[in-house]
Amino acid sequence: MREVFVAGAGMTRIGRRSEPLPELMADAAHAALAEAGLEAPDAIVVATMNPEEFLGDGNFASHVATQIGFADVPALRVETATSSGAAAFYAGFAAVAAGLRQAVLIVGGEKMTHLTTPKVSELIGRSIDPYERAYGATMPALAGLVTRSLMSKTGLGQREIAQVAVKNHANAARNPLAHFQQAVTVEEVLESRMVADPLRLLHCCPISDGAAAVVVTAAPSRVRVAGIGQGTDTLAVRHRRQLTAFTATRMAAREAYAMAGFGPERVDLAEVHDAFAPFELISLEDLGLVPPGKAGRVTLDGDTALDGRLPVNPSGGLKARGHPLAATGLAQIVECVWQLTGRAHGRQVSGARHALAHSIGGLATNNWVTLLETTG
Amino acid sequence: MREVFVAGAGMTRIGRRSEPLPELMADAAHAALAEAGLEAPDAIVVATMNPEEFLGDGNFASHVATQIGFADVPALRVETATSSGAAAFYAGFAAVAAGLRQAVLIVGGEKMTHLTTPKVSELIGRSIDPYERAYGATMPALAGLVTRSLMSKTGLGQREIAQVAVKNHANAARNPLAHFQQAVTVEEVLESRMVADPLRLLHCCPISDGAAAVVVTAAPSRVRVAGIGQGTDTLAVRHRRQLTAFTATRMAAREAYAMAGFGPERVDLAEVHDAFAPFELISLEDLGLVPPGKAGRVTLDGDTALDGRLPVNPSGGLKARGHPLAATGLAQIVECVWQLTGRAHGRQVSGARHALAHSIGGLATNNWVTLLETTG
Repeated sequence: MREVFVAGAGMTRIGRRSEPLPELMADAAHAALAEAGLEAPDAIVVATMNPEEFLGDGNFASHVATQIGFADVPALRVETATSSGAAAFYAGFAAVAAGLRQAVLIVGGEKMTHLTTPKVSELIGRSIDPYERAYGATMPALAGLVTRSLMSKTGLGQREIAQVAVKNHANAARNPLAHFQQAVTVEEVLESRMVADPLRLLHCCPISDGAAAVVVTAAPSRVRVAGIGQGTDTLAVRHRRQLTAFTATRMAAREAYAMAGFGPERVDLAEVHDAFAPFELISLEDLGLVPPGKAGRVTLDGDTALDGRLPVNPSGGLKARGHPLAATGLAQIVECVWQLTGRAHGRQVSGARHALAHSIGGLATNNWVTLLETTG
Repeated sequence: MREVFVAGAGMTRIGRRSEPLPELMADAAHAALAEAGLEAPDAIVVATMNPEEFLGDGNFASHVATQIGFADVPALRVETATSSGAAAFYAGFAAVAAGLRQAVLIVGGEKMTHLTTPKVSELIGRSIDPYERAYGATMPALAGLVTRSLMSKTGLGQREIAQVAVKNHANAARNPLAHFQQAVTVEEVLESRMVADPLRLLHCCPISDGAAAVVVTAAPSRVRVAGIGQGTDTLAVRHRRQLTAFTATRMAAREAYAMAGFGPERVDLAEVHDAFAPFELISLEDLGLVPPGKAGRVTLDGDTALDGRLPVNPSGGLKARGHPLAATGLAQIVECVWQLTGRAHGRQVSGARHALAHSIGGLATNNWVTLLETTG
């Protein structure tokens, strides 16, 4: 298998955007290509979760390729619900690793803010097992269920969970591309309105528009893909043995570390899927970055803050950078690349050599772990 | 790059089916796995074009993996409109070629017959450039435009075009899995009701349900993947230089033949994307299987019939086997595998060693050519 490198990364400002999605995706793509010094890729992988219903448009790989100006470059779309960006990264990686392509543009995006919140909730709900959906399950409702189970089983408290949101908002305030630019306090989190008990508004990621892109190449560059892993679980949450850990993350992490030839102890920073604040705590343990039962403690202690031992979500995470669905897995990788190459201005983690990106698809049915390292 | 083999193939009967789509896809998948003698694959690639709107369900890779009984096997979805099955085959091929996976299950399917024809037409229309769609373009309307141009530019007549449908219905009548089981005459084709002038009902593929699956492996088997090529074109048909040839097919064919190290002269049979009968004639020339301007003649002469020099669409093609969108690209490959291994009972092409599958995405925006050969 050939080695694969990330030669360029780009993304748009995340938030409420008025531009059509193909235009946002073209902006991110051109930024990544410019950074890679590449005139044209020899293939394109597109990630969008549900452009048919969000926008009324399909055949989106051809749509985006045409918009970017590469109608003659082979393009395909990859989808694994909310982790589609990470899945697209894998597909591009595989094409280069196999020797089928030399330089692949991978671009993900979503546009959602033009729809009402109930409509967005309905469309995201398509990722849930139909039987559970028929009983009224929504993503926040299932996340609330997981959080309740977590608090009751592990003794995790409201303050630890709220601190995730506080930390990630503080990081986002240093990221000019983040959806939210303001810090919040523990009190503000705990007083925000209830969404799905015990989850409140400030525990939840926003509905965001945006796009992110990377270029992967066979030609050596400053960042190398060290490992990729995918893990899956039953679509139905009721069929799982446990709610307080995500099997799909554990499987993905195991595979990624095995490919990389190193374990969590070497990770200098992580972008973690905190669509709901408690998911960051679950994921830190699933990824082996924190010993079992310690995620709340290390978060309160500041270990995962920007100046801590292991900065987590320096970008602001899904919680505060925003979560434009299929863009997110790539936005995480963009942040890792920028951190590894010293370009995360205002929020730079110094001396980072190994970074981890973790993306969750659906209610942890299809998760990905990507490990990147500097080659310098 | 590692060699990749097709170790198993399976499909359901195509037509009006009452079973839920995940069940149809599981049936095709289990048949392919049984033939491969494989208890479980180490990854799954799922192809569906638009399950969100056809069925109201998303996160479909996880949905299908769970239904097949492999919730713990990594699964992702690939989409390139109507050629999604072929694109999924490429993604599975790449993962094995790279050495990332040893045995990948690739399964595609669509369920459409429960919706009204206008609704299906609207959903398929999402593959068309939005500006052209706003002016009333539908897939049959654009295909009618192409056909008119073809007839006026090349002098191709109604009888040559009708003969494609006659031939493919005759083949389907020998395929127990085909949607249509009855032969039709040239007169019946020419007297069927007008859909989009000059295209009549019997020039057009039906709306079908169904699923198809293959298992690709690194371990040698009786059929080898000799080459795969992808070609693309502008989403907008009005931006193209010509209407009477598909650039995307030519590009895909060039790439596939280059990878295979042989040209069209070695192809013994082809499964070609005849969503509209004239597309088979265009494609035969785009693929280099027939000299320019000769597709109509060779069709009338019976060269592409089951007992001809180069049997085309022995399965019955999209026209008569049926076109369950994302299943189709894989159903073509299944037919090729069965032909190459002597299992196309009742329609067997004798001594076939090289087969070609050709799939069109959208109005020829995203096309694929796959070349398979026997290893015996």
